[in-house]
Amino acid sequence: MNLLLFSAKDRNENGQLQITGARLEHLLAVHGKDSGDTVRVGEINGGMGNATIISIDKTAAVLEPVLDQQAPAKLPLTLVVALPRPKMLRRILRSTAEFGVEELHLINSYRVEKSFWQTPVLQPEVIEQYLLQGLEQSRDTCLPAVHLHKRFKPFVEDELPVLVPGKQALLAHPGDYPRCPRGVAMPTLLFIGPEGGFIPYEIEKLESAGCQTVSLGPRILRVENAVTSLIGRLF
Amino acid sequence: MNLLLFSAKDRNENGQLQITGARLEHLLAVHGKDSGDTVRVGEINGGMGNATIISIDKTAAVLEPVLDQQAPAKLPLTLVVALPRPKMLRRILRSTAEFGVEELHLINSYRVEKSFWQTPVLQPEVIEQYLLQGLEQSRDTCLPAVHLHKRFKPFVEDELPVLVPGKQALLAHPGDYPRCPRGVAMPTLLFIGPEGGFIPYEIEKLESAGCQTVSLGPRILRVENAVTSLIGRLF
Repeated sequence: MNLLLFSAKDRNENGQLQITGARLEHLLAVHGKDSGDTVRVGEINGGMGNATIISIDKTAAVLEPVLDQQAPAKLPLTLVVALPRPKMLRRILRSTAEFGVEELHLINSYRVEKSFWQTPVLQPEVIEQYLLQGLEQSRDTCLPAVHLHKRFKPFVEDELPVLVPGKQALLAHPGDYPRCPRGVAMPTLLFIGPEGGFIPYEIEKLESAGCQTVSLGPRILRVENAVTSLIGRLF
Repeated sequence: MNLLLFSAKDRNENGQLQITGARLEHLLAVHGKDSGDTVRVGEINGGMGNATIISIDKTAAVLEPVLDQQAPAKLPLTLVVALPRPKMLRRILRSTAEFGVEELHLINSYRVEKSFWQTPVLQPEVIEQYLLQGLEQSRDTCLPAVHLHKRFKPFVEDELPVLVPGKQALLAHPGDYPRCPRGVAMPTLLFIGPEGGFIPYEIEKLESAGCQTVSLGPRILRVENAVTSLIGRLF
């Protein structure tokens, strides 16, 4: 945890932060913090800065925050990922927030197992929990927007026409396509398929909607590694 | 598993493959393979191709391999990572093999916890197991070399002078440094520090040994994400 995130409900009547639970344990156990020490803090979807520890014991810490910094800029990236298995989904959520992706769309695809849509990880409060872990890692306060689309065709036909304009739309797919571009400056929409890839019908639909199919090279990468290495390549 | 890997000991007297255990279960359960079906196979540190299933039941599968392809080229990358915690180490090992990194050096650093060197993950057969998972994912047969260096200073003073010549040596470190270059063609040596980063003394030693310090941008990334996004950026 490189940043202690808090929300309005952590403030007491004097505007100080009242920290308990897991964050308190982390302050005590990992950072070994004491009264008078400072901690990097950030308000969820707000500013960030430092806080001085006014008091700390096993039940609660009281911190006086000074929020004089802005969160780092987001990447101009809208990521669209075919819903992965829960274990991978957790990592994708964390990484989305960690790298500063603006928006994440989780979509259905022929090769997405139906059971994946039943995972508790997709509950809003669990999604938020993993996003917060990513923000704490990379010192950001702004939660990316996460949208779920349980049907592929309506997403492509009704939502994509709104998402594509003004963006470079790329579809990463194994095969003999041009390599993904590097160092783009413009807003980008990036599609990453499921394990086994999008099926030809899906590729066709996405290409008709304005996506350019690009290759990741000769290797088939795990979805999480495709996401992070493409982010490194693109930005 | 996108490639079934085997070694000489899996061959019977006719050169056919005798597959049992976890790989057999995977063929049956995940791929639902039957006699006459083909499977992509690769010989560890050898060629790859397809194999026809001669027979298969709950005890064993017999496959007839035809190895007519070469493994994909490795990246011209020597990765040097400060030994991470075991959970992350497993992912780094898998990703090293998956991306086709040529060599991995795990080194000590001031901020590497001593206990990390005690993990069973560092036993050669466990290292190999995770590397094989990476090769199976990206369809490669050649195991990257993995070297352990439990002392930082002897590594820098005695081993680095042999590793650096002919390579671009980069040290990824948070801070106000030039951004990591993109799309390099030349052999590259890439240093990734521990959580919390290398200490100033270590940075100095590495710079004296010919490393150029580069930044990953304004965000502090988890070690595994630093590795994969830098690979995407560099190659």
